[in-house]
Amino acid sequence: MAVNIYDDINKLESTFRSTEEFTKLQKAVEEVTADSASNELFKNFRDLQITLQQKQAQGEEITEQEMMDAQATAVAAQENPKILAMLEAEMGLSQIIDEVNRVLIKPVQSLYESM
Amino acid sequence: MAVNIYDDINKLESTFRSTEEFTKLQKAVEEVTADSASNELFKNFRDLQITLQQKQAQGEEITEQEMMDAQATAVAAQENPKILAMLEAEMGLSQIIDEVNRVLIKPVQSLYESM
Ligand SMILES: [Ca+2]
Ligand SMILES: [Ca+2]
Repeated sequence: MAVNIYDDINKLESTFRSTEEFTKLQKAVEEVTADSASNELFKNFRDLQITLQQKQAQGEEITEQEMMDAQATAVAAQENPKILAMLEAEMGLSQIIDEVNRVLIKPVQSLYESM
Repeated sequence: MAVNIYDDINKLESTFRSTEEFTKLQKAVEEVTADSASNELFKNFRDLQITLQQKQAQGEEITEQEMMDAQATAVAAQENPKILAMLEAEMGLSQIIDEVNRVLIKPVQSLYESM
């Protein structure tokens, strides 16, 4: 990897951390952390998501009960305005990361499409 | 999305297209394209990969025969030095893209880990 691309990556990361979206996420994380009920709810939501993802990755079956619990926890989490703000801010950052991927993958795809 | 992050993304894309890895891929694509046997072999390899990926995405079963055909085509493609050079160059570019993703995801993860 040419050395100068690291400069561009680091510059992008610095700008990324100063976006409105990142500042929003920082603030939202602080607000959820400061509110014990929201914090508890979010941790339950996250832990359940991780457990189900691990089961899926290991090819283990997910029961209908687990599926319903996960859905109920996700609904409860998103009905909490502090958690919702946090998840929305995270989605904004994911969109930036997706855009970066699209922009970098495009010239590679173009080369292959020329074949 | 703050406007100035587009500048950084575009700068990164421009540097990405001028990396040794990208130039290598460009050259390798030209060499495969110019050699009809290599080109044919690569297209078979790629078409078979796409077909199997689509089947998998649609939850269709992949037969043992299809699996063996795919493996045989992959081995044949990688025994072709022109195709191998192309796949290696592509892997170099994937590593850069992976690094960009790691760098951007890290500050987001750090926020969540602080909870
Ligand atoms: Ca079972
Ligand atoms: Ca079947």
